[in-house]
Amino acid sequence: MNAPLKISLDAMGGDNGPETVIGGADRSLTRRPDTEYLLFGDEPTIAPILARYPALEKKSTIYHTDVSVKMDEKPSQALRRGRRNSSMWKAIEAVKKGEADVCISAGNTGALMAMAKLCLRTVADVDRPAIAAMWPTIRREGIVLDVGANVGADANQLVDYAVMGAAMARALFSKSRPVIGLLNVGVEEIKGLDEIKKAASILRESEFPFDYHGFVEGDDLGKGLVDVVVTEGFSGNIALKTAEGTAKQVGVYLKDAMTRSWMTKLGAIIASSGFQALKRKMDPRGMNGGVFLGLNGLVIKSHGGTDAKGFASAIDLGYDMASNGLVQRLSADILEFRQSLGTDENKE
Amino acid sequence: MNAPLKISLDAMGGDNGPETVIGGADRSLTRRPDTEYLLFGDEPTIAPILARYPALEKKSTIYHTDVSVKMDEKPSQALRRGRRNSSMWKAIEAVKKGEADVCISAGNTGALMAMAKLCLRTVADVDRPAIAAMWPTIRREGIVLDVGANVGADANQLVDYAVMGAAMARALFSKSRPVIGLLNVGVEEIKGLDEIKKAASILRESEFPFDYHGFVEGDDLGKGLVDVVVTEGFSGNIALKTAEGTAKQVGVYLKDAMTRSWMTKLGAIIASSGFQALKRKMDPRGMNGGVFLGLNGLVIKSHGGTDAKGFASAIDLGYDMASNGLVQRLSADILEFRQSLGTDENKE
Repeated sequence: MNAPLKISLDAMGGDNGPETVIGGADRSLTRRPDTEYLLFGDEPTIAPILARYPALEKKSTIYHTDVSVKMDEKPSQALRRGRRNSSMWKAIEAVKKGEADVCISAGNTGALMAMAKLCLRTVADVDRPAIAAMWPTIRREGIVLDVGANVGADANQLVDYAVMGAAMARALFSKSRPVIGLLNVGVEEIKGLDEIKKAASILRESEFPFDYHGFVEGDDLGKGLVDVVVTEGFSGNIALKTAEGTAKQVGVYLKDAMTRSWMTKLGAIIASSGFQALKRKMDPRGMNGGVFLGLNGLVIKSHGGTDAKGFASAIDLGYDMASNGLVQRLSADILEFRQSLGTDENKE
Repeated sequence: MNAPLKISLDAMGGDNGPETVIGGADRSLTRRPDTEYLLFGDEPTIAPILARYPALEKKSTIYHTDVSVKMDEKPSQALRRGRRNSSMWKAIEAVKKGEADVCISAGNTGALMAMAKLCLRTVADVDRPAIAAMWPTIRREGIVLDVGANVGADANQLVDYAVMGAAMARALFSKSRPVIGLLNVGVEEIKGLDEIKKAASILRESEFPFDYHGFVEGDDLGKGLVDVVVTEGFSGNIALKTAEGTAKQVGVYLKDAMTRSWMTKLGAIIASSGFQALKRKMDPRGMNGGVFLGLNGLVIKSHGGTDAKGFASAIDLGYDMASNGLVQRLSADILEFRQSLGTDENKE
């Protein structure tokens, strides 16, 4: 790709607004210089911040909007107030119009998904887009979806998630046949929800551009057994947040353990390069960004409370997905899967 | 309580069988000496192992059974083969007959729950017993239920879980009004499943012997915000296993970080007392045991793959629950709640 990649940013999104968004874009730009930015938001607020980053300013265009979606607004309220005129909507719309390759927002997740669905529409006849998260494992990075776009999923929706997650894995990990697992409460065939069992039988029996591994459990998520773990959004969100919380909790225990005596404090100082490496490895800002899958366009949700470093990771992720043609791959895979199933079976 | 507490053990349960069960009982006996043990299983196997623990032998009676439930047996198979005659059934039955105060098994969870329901029956008109797990937090121990007895739960079942979890918290933590949270994917009222919202409104509006905190998310589990977190068994099991897996994963990262250079290795040696303390704190064997709640009798499920140290923790937990009269408290609370709701509303 020779033309620069165009990235539209909802400059008003997130707990910390334009400071984080613009600071993040500047960081990402140093790593991925062949980019241009479309910044949507309140120009009088954005312009002076952008002026502090001359390299970024050269690559950026500000598009003024009067409205910004609030972090605590209900999706329906956000749509009423911000459809067509908010920084969030405009940033998504730039993708629809082909003016940008990817949109990134740290704003309200529910509003972002509602606007993205309305503006971009879903691919083929996917009725539910999903949010996919990158998941650190002891072997390699993995993908988990859905981490909270929807509560509950039927068998066909779970299979859609598998197809979409696999397309993302192919785009990100350069694997022609990623390995997919279904999250369940046991590895035996007998256990779990009917919908999961039904999805498992579809995944086993149909032809897909990926390999189906079988069921995985919560403690397998961090092991890297598979490239993609598929689950409905309630349990996916619980798993994601439980993992984040547990990592922090262990961090607290570790700090307590290293400050309990003169000796442990000394040892910790001597081993400080190791603790710094651990801190970098476990920094949630290094792996930030939920990818909306199943839409006719690429939208990435950054954690709302992140800082410039974290927002830069979300931009990096968006860049990588866009430059690997995620949406095109995903659309082709979904269509092929639909055709292989036949319309009747799919519509049941 | 002056009479010794009587503990019935399924000596054949678990991946490692009688060695673990008897070794565990011996460890627990040193901590809680006012106990007597009923050991159910294959006498020719059990007797020579028990003979190695003279103190325990004095307090124990072996009850021979020919049948033991296999770890991978389906509950229906286990019931067909082992109802009335297996070590698992007999150990539960001892509780029913009043010969034991609590039954502990490291056997097959599904079979244990099926047998416990059939043998002991549920309290009042609870239709679904739950499995409650102790959850380590940065503040204090918490309780999470259901961690896998049932997949899915309606609003009334979630409220039952809250009442039962609160009874357990009152028995274990000596708090007259434990604080209860409902696991959800967001703290805003708008989000999550209808059943959870409905349960929340019952918990807010009714009179209970506990305080309702509101929704909690996955990353709150380790914070100790509440005494009891209530969820349906699928997401509860995913959360429990994700937390276990994440703790192990961070352990792997920590080991890598401390062995990356000569300096970090030296620091780790100097700080070794801290790492030992951390290891003890994070040892899953220190907090082992799923408590079956909602039955007319106390049954504890130990992790199947644990060792004697872990099994001893499960016995300790069973001892503490039995000596605090968990089942009596729970039955009284459930009945009172049922009466406060009225039969019609409850039966909807």
